[in-house]
Amino acid sequence: MTAPDTKTDKALRDDLLATAEALADAARAAILPHFRAEGLGADNKDDTGFDPVTVADRAAEEAMRAVLASRRPDDGILGEEYGTVEGSTGLTWVLDPIDGTRGFLSGTPTWGVLVAVGPDTGPILGVIDQPYTGERFVGGLGEAWMTGPLGRRSLRTRPARSLSEAIVFTTFPEVGTPAEGAAFQRLSKAARLTRYGMDCYAYALIAAGQIDVVAEAGLYAYDVQAPIAVIEAAGGVVTDWEGNPCPQGGRVLAAANREIHAEALEYLRGVE
Amino acid sequence: MTAPDTKTDKALRDDLLATAEALADAARAAILPHFRAEGLGADNKDDTGFDPVTVADRAAEEAMRAVLASRRPDDGILGEEYGTVEGSTGLTWVLDPIDGTRGFLSGTPTWGVLVAVGPDTGPILGVIDQPYTGERFVGGLGEAWMTGPLGRRSLRTRPARSLSEAIVFTTFPEVGTPAEGAAFQRLSKAARLTRYGMDCYAYALIAAGQIDVVAEAGLYAYDVQAPIAVIEAAGGVVTDWEGNPCPQGGRVLAAANREIHAEALEYLRGVE
Repeated sequence: MTAPDTKTDKALRDDLLATAEALADAARAAILPHFRAEGLGADNKDDTGFDPVTVADRAAEEAMRAVLASRRPDDGILGEEYGTVEGSTGLTWVLDPIDGTRGFLSGTPTWGVLVAVGPDTGPILGVIDQPYTGERFVGGLGEAWMTGPLGRRSLRTRPARSLSEAIVFTTFPEVGTPAEGAAFQRLSKAARLTRYGMDCYAYALIAAGQIDVVAEAGLYAYDVQAPIAVIEAAGGVVTDWEGNPCPQGGRVLAAANREIHAEALEYLRGVE
Repeated sequence: MTAPDTKTDKALRDDLLATAEALADAARAAILPHFRAEGLGADNKDDTGFDPVTVADRAAEEAMRAVLASRRPDDGILGEEYGTVEGSTGLTWVLDPIDGTRGFLSGTPTWGVLVAVGPDTGPILGVIDQPYTGERFVGGLGEAWMTGPLGRRSLRTRPARSLSEAIVFTTFPEVGTPAEGAAFQRLSKAARLTRYGMDCYAYALIAAGQIDVVAEAGLYAYDVQAPIAVIEAAGGVVTDWEGNPCPQGGRVLAAANREIHAEALEYLRGVE
């Protein structure tokens, strides 16, 4: 199946952008009533018997699938909660209604709604949305911008600096397997500062020019496609730990620029 | 010096609350222009030759001291940046304009403005303010509430649950000395979930009923007094790692309730 040519088709570009924002809007509305909900403290289950994050996750993906059924019924869908729907347009929407469920359960505003769209080769547009802070990071199809508490700003990654001056993020100190964790620790020791616990928000911080590197392991396609699109649109580089494209997830190295990507890759390459 | 009796003096309570909010407002206005500032990525220094966080830190404490000079000139001040001013009222304001400078430098919304006031024995009122998200957590003098993206809510800590069901936070995985870090790791292993990287925001999450325990070491009075006031007002308990009051900082164990405080204390007590 050949994907349509978004370079020449402005109406399609506009429709994909509007649809991506409509998906993020729908997810926001579905999720926010469950975030830090009253009574959540009581037993961490609501009337359905599920964690509030599970309820919110499913409600958001259902809401997003309803948007696609209405706006783009012929595209494919790959969603974290409800699996794959084959399409006929050559484009697939990749949806993670709540990336960072442990952050969500802890009340931190570091989780996000991830939306991406593209052909099988990888995303051409992505959105990282944080419903609680009201931040939205959009990248691809010629767009690279965010909205949030300080208004609308362009997204542009940081210029090159050495790893010894760089800020590195990952979500969990263990990172992945022991070998993956050991590789990350070598990278971390070479960096100026390592911080943890940001879930998908760390990728948004690369796109926003605030940090230099994120490295993680064990990711899925729906974890990584929106970050890939947003970071690349802002000037950054995202690959696996061997320097290859990683639209299917796995081990991910996201960097603000080609230079620091190359330097960080030396610490992660060749892990068994 | 005898502190005034805020129990019988409603005008004083109102003045302290209004002053605490005025301090947080002044700090917000001074800091926000420096957070994620354009060009910050260039070399991490502005025209003064200092990190933006240092510039913002100093500007915010100067702005807060100007508020106090106008509103409460006879109270004492203990500030992170500009030291101690003795007062004559028996009350001292304890100010940390930016708690979590590494979070600030990384662009995460996990740092905060900390304001507390009280006699030498400890805080009677505290504010944890996050200027970027617009969240403010206030506790003491009969108040326990927050404002933020979802409006105004009461603060109430979680009811008791066992540590094996609990969410534990600390800012850095290393925590403090090797012995302190080892004690924390024992606590972490007994918990359901451990998360990192939240700076003072983790204390606000205890007060807001989202998490159960925060443990840290090497804190100063200005790091801990606002969290003590806010968490205690919301129903929680804050002590050092021996179970004693800790208004001067050091090793801090903050917990949602007496039961989980006692359980967590068993893992931290007696560290050399």
